[in-house]
Amino acid sequence: MTIPQQFEERIIFPVGEKIENEYFRGPAWLGVLVAPDSAWNCPIFNVTFEPGVRNNWHRHPGGQILLVTAGTGYYQEEGKTARLLNKGDVVQIPPDVRHWHGAAADSWFSHIAISTNVQQGDVEWMEPVTDEEYPE
Amino acid sequence: MTIPQQFEERIIFPVGEKIENEYFRGPAWLGVLVAPDSAWNCPIFNVTFEPGVRNNWHRHPGGQILLVTAGTGYYQEEGKTARLLNKGDVVQIPPDVRHWHGAAADSWFSHIAISTNVQQGDVEWMEPVTDEEYPE
Repeated sequence: MTIPQQFEERIIFPVGEKIENEYFRGPAWLGVLVAPDSAWNCPIFNVTFEPGVRNNWHRHPGGQILLVTAGTGYYQEEGKTARLLNKGDVVQIPPDVRHWHGAAADSWFSHIAISTNVQQGDVEWMEPVTDEEYPE
Repeated sequence: MTIPQQFEERIIFPVGEKIENEYFRGPAWLGVLVAPDSAWNCPIFNVTFEPGVRNNWHRHPGGQILLVTAGTGYYQEEGKTARLLNKGDVVQIPPDVRHWHGAAADSWFSHIAISTNVQQGDVEWMEPVTDEEYPE
């Protein structure tokens, strides 16, 4: 499936390339808005998920911030209920908290992801979100 | 003048409150998306400018990143030509570089502003951009 043109226009920022790794359950796209760099220490990515697609459980040693630009999706921290996300929502992911994010089952979803405190280290990927964990 | 509804819908994020300081030439709005905080060290603001409105010359000791969400505006570094900005554009403002940003004369303009390397210190405001400096 490719990104519907009507949805892509609402994302505002470049969608980039299809993600080729095992940490996303299904198709997702990554646009590099700000590359990792020692002058700003603030990598920024545009991430777009096909309906139903989410990333694995993971944690960021320095935290992360999500700015939702289009569609409907979820953010869940371990031990908490998944939070429904819509455009305009902001998520502050604390350092070291195990979590996942991704699209709702029936909606494309796109957010900007801002890495914070990058000197604390890289993302640590863990196991996939199961169908039982994913919100109905 | 208030923000036209058709424009406000394109901004995606909350426009916030009218800016009440002397560093903007005319009406502008500031929405706090992420407040200053020692866990993330990454304050994020939504800034909306009435047509023709720009901020004063200023510099950020730690740099700043702009993500343009709607409208047309300008970014200018001292000694360089002003850069025309449209939605989807990204501006990486280097630490300590004197610059200004704001709306084009005939367009509302909105960008997200991300403060980087905040431990380097606060913004330093300088003199207004003159009509001679502002692009025709």
